[in-house]
Amino acid sequence: MPSLPPLAARLQGVASSPVRDLLALLERPDVLSFAGGLPAPELFDLDGVRDAYTRVLAGPGARLALQYAPTEGNAELRALVAARLTGRGLPTDPGDLVITTGSQQALTLVTTALLDPGAVVAVESPTYLAALQSFQLAGARIVAVPGDEDGVDPDALADVVARHRPVLFYTVPTFANPTGRTLPAARRAEVARIAAAGGMRVVEDDPYGELRYRGEPVAPIAAGSEQVFYLGSFSKIGAPGLRLGWVRSPADVRPALVVAKQAADLHTSTIDQAAAVAYLAVADVDAHVARLRAAYRERRDTMVAALPSVLPAGSTWTDPDGGMFVWVRLPDGFDAASLLTTALAHDVAFVPGAPFYAGEPDRATLRLSFTTNSPEAIQEGMKRLGAALV
Amino acid sequence: MPSLPPLAARLQGVASSPVRDLLALLERPDVLSFAGGLPAPELFDLDGVRDAYTRVLAGPGARLALQYAPTEGNAELRALVAARLTGRGLPTDPGDLVITTGSQQALTLVTTALLDPGAVVAVESPTYLAALQSFQLAGARIVAVPGDEDGVDPDALADVVARHRPVLFYTVPTFANPTGRTLPAARRAEVARIAAAGGMRVVEDDPYGELRYRGEPVAPIAAGSEQVFYLGSFSKIGAPGLRLGWVRSPADVRPALVVAKQAADLHTSTIDQAAAVAYLAVADVDAHVARLRAAYRERRDTMVAALPSVLPAGSTWTDPDGGMFVWVRLPDGFDAASLLTTALAHDVAFVPGAPFYAGEPDRATLRLSFTTNSPEAIQEGMKRLGAALV
Repeated sequence: MPSLPPLAARLQGVASSPVRDLLALLERPDVLSFAGGLPAPELFDLDGVRDAYTRVLAGPGARLALQYAPTEGNAELRALVAARLTGRGLPTDPGDLVITTGSQQALTLVTTALLDPGAVVAVESPTYLAALQSFQLAGARIVAVPGDEDGVDPDALADVVARHRPVLFYTVPTFANPTGRTLPAARRAEVARIAAAGGMRVVEDDPYGELRYRGEPVAPIAAGSEQVFYLGSFSKIGAPGLRLGWVRSPADVRPALVVAKQAADLHTSTIDQAAAVAYLAVADVDAHVARLRAAYRERRDTMVAALPSVLPAGSTWTDPDGGMFVWVRLPDGFDAASLLTTALAHDVAFVPGAPFYAGEPDRATLRLSFTTNSPEAIQEGMKRLGAALV
Repeated sequence: MPSLPPLAARLQGVASSPVRDLLALLERPDVLSFAGGLPAPELFDLDGVRDAYTRVLAGPGARLALQYAPTEGNAELRALVAARLTGRGLPTDPGDLVITTGSQQALTLVTTALLDPGAVVAVESPTYLAALQSFQLAGARIVAVPGDEDGVDPDALADVVARHRPVLFYTVPTFANPTGRTLPAARRAEVARIAAAGGMRVVEDDPYGELRYRGEPVAPIAAGSEQVFYLGSFSKIGAPGLRLGWVRSPADVRPALVVAKQAADLHTSTIDQAAAVAYLAVADVDAHVARLRAAYRERRDTMVAALPSVLPAGSTWTDPDGGMFVWVRLPDGFDAASLLTTALAHDVAFVPGAPFYAGEPDRATLRLSFTTNSPEAIQEGMKRLGAALV
């Protein structure tokens, strides 16, 4: 066989294994997993989704729903998403949007369009690890920007911009993955100002924004800047199996995104897009989101209430206003990765925090997802975690 | 706004516009189009597909079909595809396969995994233009390999390998896009030998292989070489709207493909994969393919029979054994691109041949697709083309 080209060799080395190994853990049925960022399947609107596919495939557009389709996405779906974003305080024209095969694809399209090998990307730290992988895959140099309990520190971001001239800043400003933190409005304005002054683009990844359990919505960074790629998804409020996301892109880069999208998969599943349109035409999305919020709020509360009796003295954790994750820091000296082995022996799982860091990891951190399990299962899982920590 | 990074600027310049502009032509309802490579929607097994989605969404696995899923693809679907490939003379283990969001994604994953900027790719000439775009996007240097009515010339390929050391050779050896040509078994063996001797990988793109209207199947190149990425698709025998394809990969590169796939979209639509499994569990695929073959054979015959009275004296064309395309060469001096404007004025469309060439284009060539239109529509369209050529 020919030897592996340098790129393939580098790819084998990209730290993809954590997520994939962790998904593998979920397959052991006796493990109570707080690892994956999975929505609760029992909360899917299965009847509504089934009805949507049935209407599409029994309707006059059925054969069109099985045919090739435009790269930018279904026009009606773009209009529906634009209307919903506009209603949430982000004025959006359907033409601003490209429908993507999940928001993961949106991230990789932006990466493909903007990052030459060696380009610098700034990221809040810690951050979504699949974003780190996407940037590594592109051969980018990643610079971590420190933050605090309110998210990224604007002064630190300004310093990184001045010293490293990043092309992009990647952030999950609302109910962040992995920390659950939300960036306040004043800091969002600072980020927009720094981006404008530094000639830097921003990727605002917002899969969780509608899952708020407490407090008032904060306007997206994109509402105050034209340099923002705003990424959204049906995965958390609808269902991830349809792989439907979108990117609201600055006009100058949109043609490049469409070219990259065409190379990536020509277009997103025609039938899944048509089913989403059919679903949105009749469903009360706000009522469904309210049901999700109520259920997830209880799960968050259950987990956060259990933590003081489970974690060692000196631990800290976030109590997120929304989203899916609680971020834990154990006392100095703990290593969450080795603790995971012990936890698995007690049939409970979490994600060690280290892979979420672009720079030096804090090995005492870990991420707990509270959305996938019922309150009862969360209580049982917390007991097991406590036993593993003894 | 920040200026466009070099990559985005290059992307805007990638010759993507031909395909997209051509898809736009199809939207004018009065145009009889032989341009797109679209399967005939009236031949979709709509009842079978509707039944498959219904069974998935009414069955015990319904909620799982809406959830996140493994990156490599649905295990049952991989097993079904492996069995079908094995039955067609390409022994395949389910573990050899990665399910992709259409075979276009498979091509881009291989490109992502293997092509560093500046890497050399050899292609038969002319070839599938979205493949050319994918390689251009990766910053590869493309070297065209000449051929004849039997496809690529092995001596010319050996010469290119000796002089340019390509990492990859890309080919559609069966009912090629755009030429309709099929590479004979002896040449396939030569390609495999040249790849082995030259340390080169081969991408064998085979979306049309099952659509044979005449003669006996020829074994894939992959059946005689371990250096081949074999790309397949449900788009031509099932329906393209589901965006379901696959790649049968050499073992050493497969982990890199999975990493690239994870970055690309995490995984292909869970529900579309589940529906394909449900469909394949009960459908008589061979009978469906036989129906497609019978219908497309008649359409090919209709088009080929009409060409002598439509094209100017001195024109040549292929009479393909299968697939979707007839490749026409007009006499010297004709320019198919400017002819397209005249043709559109007569409400008929085709694809000029020039964009399919990596090197110097033959501007007298054009591609006609015979699958999308009924025999009656083909006869009417041929009349219009004849009028445009007067």
